[in-house]
Amino acid sequence: MYRPQIKVVDCTIRDGGLINDHRFEDSFVKAVYKACSLAGVDYVELGYQLSKNLYAAEKFGRSKFCDEDFLREIVEGVDPKTKVATMVDVGRVELDQIRQKKDSVVDLMRVACYVKDIDKAIDYVKHLNAKGYATTVNIMAISTALQPDLEEGLAELAESPVKAVYVVDSYGHLFSEQIHFLVKLYLKYLQPKGIEVGIHAHNNQQLGFANTIEAIRKGANYLDGTIFGIGRGPGNCPLELLLGFLKNPKFKLEPILEVIEKEFLPLRDKIEWGYIIPYMITGMLNQHPRSAIALRAGKDKDKYAQFYRGIVLDI
Amino acid sequence: MYRPQIKVVDCTIRDGGLINDHRFEDSFVKAVYKACSLAGVDYVELGYQLSKNLYAAEKFGRSKFCDEDFLREIVEGVDPKTKVATMVDVGRVELDQIRQKKDSVVDLMRVACYVKDIDKAIDYVKHLNAKGYATTVNIMAISTALQPDLEEGLAELAESPVKAVYVVDSYGHLFSEQIHFLVKLYLKYLQPKGIEVGIHAHNNQQLGFANTIEAIRKGANYLDGTIFGIGRGPGNCPLELLLGFLKNPKFKLEPILEVIEKEFLPLRDKIEWGYIIPYMITGMLNQHPRSAIALRAGKDKDKYAQFYRGIVLDI
Repeated sequence: MYRPQIKVVDCTIRDGGLINDHRFEDSFVKAVYKACSLAGVDYVELGYQLSKNLYAAEKFGRSKFCDEDFLREIVEGVDPKTKVATMVDVGRVELDQIRQKKDSVVDLMRVACYVKDIDKAIDYVKHLNAKGYATTVNIMAISTALQPDLEEGLAELAESPVKAVYVVDSYGHLFSEQIHFLVKLYLKYLQPKGIEVGIHAHNNQQLGFANTIEAIRKGANYLDGTIFGIGRGPGNCPLELLLGFLKNPKFKLEPILEVIEKEFLPLRDKIEWGYIIPYMITGMLNQHPRSAIALRAGKDKDKYAQFYRGIVLDI
Repeated sequence: MYRPQIKVVDCTIRDGGLINDHRFEDSFVKAVYKACSLAGVDYVELGYQLSKNLYAAEKFGRSKFCDEDFLREIVEGVDPKTKVATMVDVGRVELDQIRQKKDSVVDLMRVACYVKDIDKAIDYVKHLNAKGYATTVNIMAISTALQPDLEEGLAELAESPVKAVYVVDSYGHLFSEQIHFLVKLYLKYLQPKGIEVGIHAHNNQQLGFANTIEAIRKGANYLDGTIFGIGRGPGNCPLELLLGFLKNPKFKLEPILEVIEKEFLPLRDKIEWGYIIPYMITGMLNQHPRSAIALRAGKDKDKYAQFYRGIVLDI
């Protein structure tokens, strides 16, 4: 029997927007939200709520900031059973400027941090909870976290009002046994307090979907995906694969297939994501993809062997 | 410590040739063999040995038939430590016309069959073993095999001189727990006789590499992959990911990266493979990809929702 506690979070707009500075057409954002609503997805993450003091508004699209008027335009007229999420990165947001939940269509605030910043993330969680939001903490680059630091952070998170804490494989580096280890470690600290574990997997080694399945098998209940796997570089766990795997009859595949053919095929002619060798290499080597991003922007974008040698030999 | 019994089999030319009727340039085939040799791959499958009475020679490339002069041209001048394999499909070959091992550069003959034809495959194995070859049996479409039939076949294979028997997920349908189940079932019958288990995974649901890892975890030692994941439709477990995962220091990644950039990028401008939604759908629904192949050849090739409805509603 399917596990009713499972929540699917679509982060197409938030995570996919890292490719194009969140310059999506409003009609595209709305099509994504509507498709997810029809498909029975639990949450749609419509972008970041980052500080306009730190990020120049004219350089980014509306999903970088998620002003309330933007969000209301997107959700208007769509069945609201799919809840709205936005992300705040620790250190990139003005907490005081975030509105009260009662004045917003946002339900879930996702706080992203590295393991070293878990204390700050907990401050954010408390602040946002006091404003009425549900919260998650998404611990990024988990494949580089030292176990004692991570365990200390998980012990602190267990005492916070957070709803779920994520394993985020930012570099797309982890294999199934490491996913099993991490989910079990998270659960050890969080499950006794009724806090859920989440999984956000990147696809550098074509393991985004597989690692999400492995996390589910070990007890993760918050599952991130993006439509057609969109996301910077290799992208993410494809939402359509995830919905096909889950047995809960509330999920429907067809609306996602429709939005792929209508909205995502034309988009992919303009921006690239998917299985791209330089990102496979950074994932395999447990590195941030920035060197691959730089390579792909230049004339040597397909010099794979030279790129690999450059990293391995440090030349 | 790495498992020295593991054998990596590159089936780029044999399996990838299903996209283009094996019409590869000889220089391409040679580049693949050479790259695999430099990378430390154990076997390279250079094509089929099918009957020219059944397949018109002028309609297919040389890898469909693997005449001895073709194979010798390919391997000439390359370090021969990478052995040559070819495939024979049960019912599509003239066994009597297959030369003796002593007159051939081929070491390994891979016999492909469905579960219903295991008895015939065992006849082939005996015949080919008597001619001096090592053999494997590759049981195709395993996701549709009934367990009693499969167990009866495995029990018979255990009494044959076969070297390895493969789990072949032809439809790209299986998830990790099913891979675990099948590999353990195969091992139960085959391991007592010293026969190895192999895995050949398709990538319809982006699980080709993941399922290969899961088979390794449960004891499979014969591992199929293709360079850049080439193969009909979604393709196969990418060899470069597999080599990156395996810890045996004899494997080298760089020659594979080089051949991808030089030979596979230009080829992919001409023929398609990879994550393509209609093949994802046939995989999810445990079907042969023929409906997806037909769709991709026509004007409705990107009508994903209509294709899905057509299958699910049978209209």
